[in-house]
Amino acid sequence: MKGMSKVIGIGFLGLGIVGSQVLSYIKENKDYVEEVYGMEFLTKSVYVRDITKKRDVDTSDIYLTTDVTKIVENPNVQVCIECMGGAGMEETYDAVMGAIHNGKHIVMSSKKCLAVYGTKIIEAANQYNVQLRFEASVGGCIPICRSLMQMSKGDEVTKIYGIVNATSTYILSAMESKKITFDEALQQAKEKGFAENNSSEDILGFDTLNKMRILLRLGMKVDVDCNDVNPVSIENINDESTNREEPIIRQVFYAEKTMQDDINCFVGPQILKSDSMLKNVSENYNMIFVESKHSGLRAYYGKGAGGRETASVMFDDLIDVVQSNYRFEEIKPIGCNCLSGDTFEL
Amino acid sequence: MKGMSKVIGIGFLGLGIVGSQVLSYIKENKDYVEEVYGMEFLTKSVYVRDITKKRDVDTSDIYLTTDVTKIVENPNVQVCIECMGGAGMEETYDAVMGAIHNGKHIVMSSKKCLAVYGTKIIEAANQYNVQLRFEASVGGCIPICRSLMQMSKGDEVTKIYGIVNATSTYILSAMESKKITFDEALQQAKEKGFAENNSSEDILGFDTLNKMRILLRLGMKVDVDCNDVNPVSIENINDESTNREEPIIRQVFYAEKTMQDDINCFVGPQILKSDSMLKNVSENYNMIFVESKHSGLRAYYGKGAGGRETASVMFDDLIDVVQSNYRFEEIKPIGCNCLSGDTFEL
Repeated sequence: MKGMSKVIGIGFLGLGIVGSQVLSYIKENKDYVEEVYGMEFLTKSVYVRDITKKRDVDTSDIYLTTDVTKIVENPNVQVCIECMGGAGMEETYDAVMGAIHNGKHIVMSSKKCLAVYGTKIIEAANQYNVQLRFEASVGGCIPICRSLMQMSKGDEVTKIYGIVNATSTYILSAMESKKITFDEALQQAKEKGFAENNSSEDILGFDTLNKMRILLRLGMKVDVDCNDVNPVSIENINDESTNREEPIIRQVFYAEKTMQDDINCFVGPQILKSDSMLKNVSENYNMIFVESKHSGLRAYYGKGAGGRETASVMFDDLIDVVQSNYRFEEIKPIGCNCLSGDTFEL
Repeated sequence: MKGMSKVIGIGFLGLGIVGSQVLSYIKENKDYVEEVYGMEFLTKSVYVRDITKKRDVDTSDIYLTTDVTKIVENPNVQVCIECMGGAGMEETYDAVMGAIHNGKHIVMSSKKCLAVYGTKIIEAANQYNVQLRFEASVGGCIPICRSLMQMSKGDEVTKIYGIVNATSTYILSAMESKKITFDEALQQAKEKGFAENNSSEDILGFDTLNKMRILLRLGMKVDVDCNDVNPVSIENINDESTNREEPIIRQVFYAEKTMQDDINCFVGPQILKSDSMLKNVSENYNMIFVESKHSGLRAYYGKGAGGRETASVMFDDLIDVVQSNYRFEEIKPIGCNCLSGDTFEL
């Protein structure tokens, strides 16, 4: 096949920890892509905010630029890989929309930008007939986005719930197993790399809320206004409640369609049933349940974080955008009611 | 969109219980397919072995024929839906290959035919540039085939294991929870619809072995000769072992790649670890674990059987074949060694 491979130009939007890992993964798999797909992923140009910054990947053969139009308007770029986690979500949104308007397929990772602007981005992808994937944004290695995109066609997804935040899982399970306080557990989580220095979005539930919003779009084809949902912080859990032998508490999300065609939902700490499968979720694993009218209950489990893991999933997305001609279904805004944790069981 | 829809001609190969459900599902979703995809799935002709047989679905506007060439060589058919479970696997294979040779996309369900002839069918699909899907053949509603097809690209799947046979799950859990004998449990399974009249393939492990073979092709890109594997029957389980409080025994499959580049595998009853997630599998649910080098451990859980469930999954496959341009990776024959159940833990 050598010399006959079809060249697919790749442009990176952002080259931080995630972006560097994806770039390495693409380089490592050069022969594989050539052999199996008769293609070559060629990364020519990368948008960064600071050209002088030291990176974990060799960029000697790549053009680094602080001008995003050099990527999104570049006629030699067919696919953009967005890894702008460090940037603001408006900047990310503008870059992504620029790419779509110029007919580039796009593999995204920034969950906050997707949570807020996802409907607009999806509509633009449909309109400009480009392929859009964002598996890495929710549940890490779990193929939940593609499953919701591809499954239960003509069926009706009635419930989606689960655990999608590793920081809170680490804290709550450490409080339980080690009989320590919230503050001690948070400190340990930071030391072990399960929590960022500023973990308030994880603890307060906003990270999980963002991920729930992304999943509801794909699974139920609805857009919930996050301002309508008040997540419950795990900070205020009574340390005594985790000191008893029995209860396992996890930060969960729960969303169900109501008969009135709106959504009941909850984000926050929940005591799990004694036979709950969610009890198996520890460390940086996530687990997501999806219930549909005809196909019943499905569950997905896997690592929710990790650089190598994220790179692997974004590489799968990259392969997918060049092989598929997927069209997203229309997403409608929907009202939602906040449940309290004692009105449902997990 | 009315009147402007692109018509996709569908030809059924077989119209038994599964086929009838799929046909109904397609009819029920006529408006959905038109609205979302601007397409119409039009079922014109159906291959059956007995035209006079009474069916669960209205066939008044459909041409039933016992001549399979009328389907597989029909220029108005773009997708064939294979539901020939009742037929012999050679007949199924011939029909499927006829369809592929005539450029039809194909959605299959017959696991036995896929287990034995899967490599040839996959190679033919690649060669004739048609789309092939068979999600319903393993794990029912679990999107395991598409996940293995789409995930861990350039990664290496090192282990696949799990529970994929509802009959054996029902029998073993009934023996445990009700303290009854194997024969009593089998009788109950038949009464409740969890077992066929002739359940020997389920009990002896051949059904699970067939499904393992299908998964190994997709996940590890290898073909194991089923003659090299001796599944262990669940029939010979000592009734006493299930009478104790502790052990939960399930019929499992387990396959791991070795350093010598062959496969170690096992099919049969296995005592589950006390904290095994597989313990949550009961009734007609299945659960499958996949371990990869970079993306780590993933698990999938869902209903393994059911008419409506199977129809839903085959309908998803149908939507997929008209949206994707997937190419299977090359599958290589591989040697395998039979493990005994005490050499690994699940």
